[in-house]
Amino acid sequence: MSFLDHIRACNAHDLSGFRPFELEGHRLGWVRHALAEQLPGVDPGFVVTADRVTLAPEVRDFEARSSVLEHAARFLVETGAVSALRGEFYPVAPAWGAEPLMRIDRAVVAQFGVAAYGLHVNGFVRQPDGGLSLWIGRRARDREVAPGKLDNMIAGGQPIGLTLAENLVKEAQEEAGIDAALASRAVPVGAVTYRMETEAGLKQDTLFLYDLELDADFVPQNTDGEVERFELWPLDRVAESVRATKDWKFNVNLVVIDFMIRHGRLTPEEPGYLEIVRGLRR
Amino acid sequence: MSFLDHIRACNAHDLSGFRPFELEGHRLGWVRHALAEQLPGVDPGFVVTADRVTLAPEVRDFEARSSVLEHAARFLVETGAVSALRGEFYPVAPAWGAEPLMRIDRAVVAQFGVAAYGLHVNGFVRQPDGGLSLWIGRRARDREVAPGKLDNMIAGGQPIGLTLAENLVKEAQEEAGIDAALASRAVPVGAVTYRMETEAGLKQDTLFLYDLELDADFVPQNTDGEVERFELWPLDRVAESVRATKDWKFNVNLVVIDFMIRHGRLTPEEPGYLEIVRGLRR
Repeated sequence: MSFLDHIRACNAHDLSGFRPFELEGHRLGWVRHALAEQLPGVDPGFVVTADRVTLAPEVRDFEARSSVLEHAARFLVETGAVSALRGEFYPVAPAWGAEPLMRIDRAVVAQFGVAAYGLHVNGFVRQPDGGLSLWIGRRARDREVAPGKLDNMIAGGQPIGLTLAENLVKEAQEEAGIDAALASRAVPVGAVTYRMETEAGLKQDTLFLYDLELDADFVPQNTDGEVERFELWPLDRVAESVRATKDWKFNVNLVVIDFMIRHGRLTPEEPGYLEIVRGLRR
Repeated sequence: MSFLDHIRACNAHDLSGFRPFELEGHRLGWVRHALAEQLPGVDPGFVVTADRVTLAPEVRDFEARSSVLEHAARFLVETGAVSALRGEFYPVAPAWGAEPLMRIDRAVVAQFGVAAYGLHVNGFVRQPDGGLSLWIGRRARDREVAPGKLDNMIAGGQPIGLTLAENLVKEAQEEAGIDAALASRAVPVGAVTYRMETEAGLKQDTLFLYDLELDADFVPQNTDGEVERFELWPLDRVAESVRATKDWKFNVNLVVIDFMIRHGRLTPEEPGYLEIVRGLRR
């Protein structure tokens, strides 16, 4: 493994296996050909040609469009492609911050290749010698995604109807037992993006990044069962672990690499530095 | 003006006006068609077709190749396209960190569209309330490039034969009167890249970025005449100035925008945030 290998793994995909999912001239996502061809049988609101998947013009408003996607989501559960719906909804919009055209159950976001957003918080401690340590979570073994893998102190998907700031407060409480006052000290520091083909479909993810500096005596407490335990690692141990292992949740590698770049642990002398810097934002 | 306007201005170019400058299968740069067609008359070492500019296979080693480029550089001075050579040389290499295939006078880098590298240091002060202020330089009025414009505290091109760390120490001394001990506290924090067409040709620049935190009582002192005066500006004033004016050296806008992103002054709620984040690394 290398830093670049993690970035490449998160960007491996072949769009020839997909066709665009479009609405009102916007490309909203990508659907595998096999699923695309099934969709008109699932709901007549889907209009599918060899070139694209779209919705019929008479499916006009937010609720009607969301309902068509909901039928597709239930179909994917029936066929066993998806184990269960989440009841948590993501916006489907032409761009970040734009008005959503519809909502989609989080469980089928990749099947439609829709852009998804999340937030990741690097909880760090400045050591007396000036070095940094990072709080990392070991994910619970019963998780469906990345069981037992290493994770950021706080991370979560961005659902419809919450601002990033509201979601940060909610996730900080659930994942690390951090109250709103402390959570509000997290500093937004950028974003990582990637496009990755998975068994489910195409993940087009944007992770909004935050740094939260913590006192030396602070210890995060998980409250929602997602994290088995937290550990405070010096940045050198983090760097070696990311470089040499697959112990980290796939996309958290990118968040941690970005943290190391911004804090001078990964420098221009590192082989492939510019490819790494660029590879974090596609 | 807007933050995105500055990024777009630094990336405006039309490659149809250029042909690739290649060697040993590597694309090293881009040359305007009119110059390309003149080059074989300048030195028989140039081999020019409708598709590309390259060097003849018998021009084999570093010195011989550099000599061919030197002839082109002198030709550009003779024709008046370039006012004078600099006698400061940039490496021409397939990638950052790779062995240079030749050197090129800094004055004609854009005429060959060769990748150029520089370093920019954000000198900042943490205020008692936690806010940040940035030391900015007002460039001397007699400079050929961007006279009177606002600049980073320290900035300089990366010549052949110096490491980044060596160049940082040199530029810190020349531009801000900062000694090696203080300069070595600058933290590398990433890179900004852009590709911009200018009258001279194509600028393909990578700026390595550093943050240097300074004590409240520190005042930079210019020693080489490049800076007319230094001022310490609160980040809000920096943000409004970048957003609303053309007072900054064109590429320093990008460095300052990146600083504001990494330090939470520019947040995901900013319109076009993701386009800005991505636009800084092409």
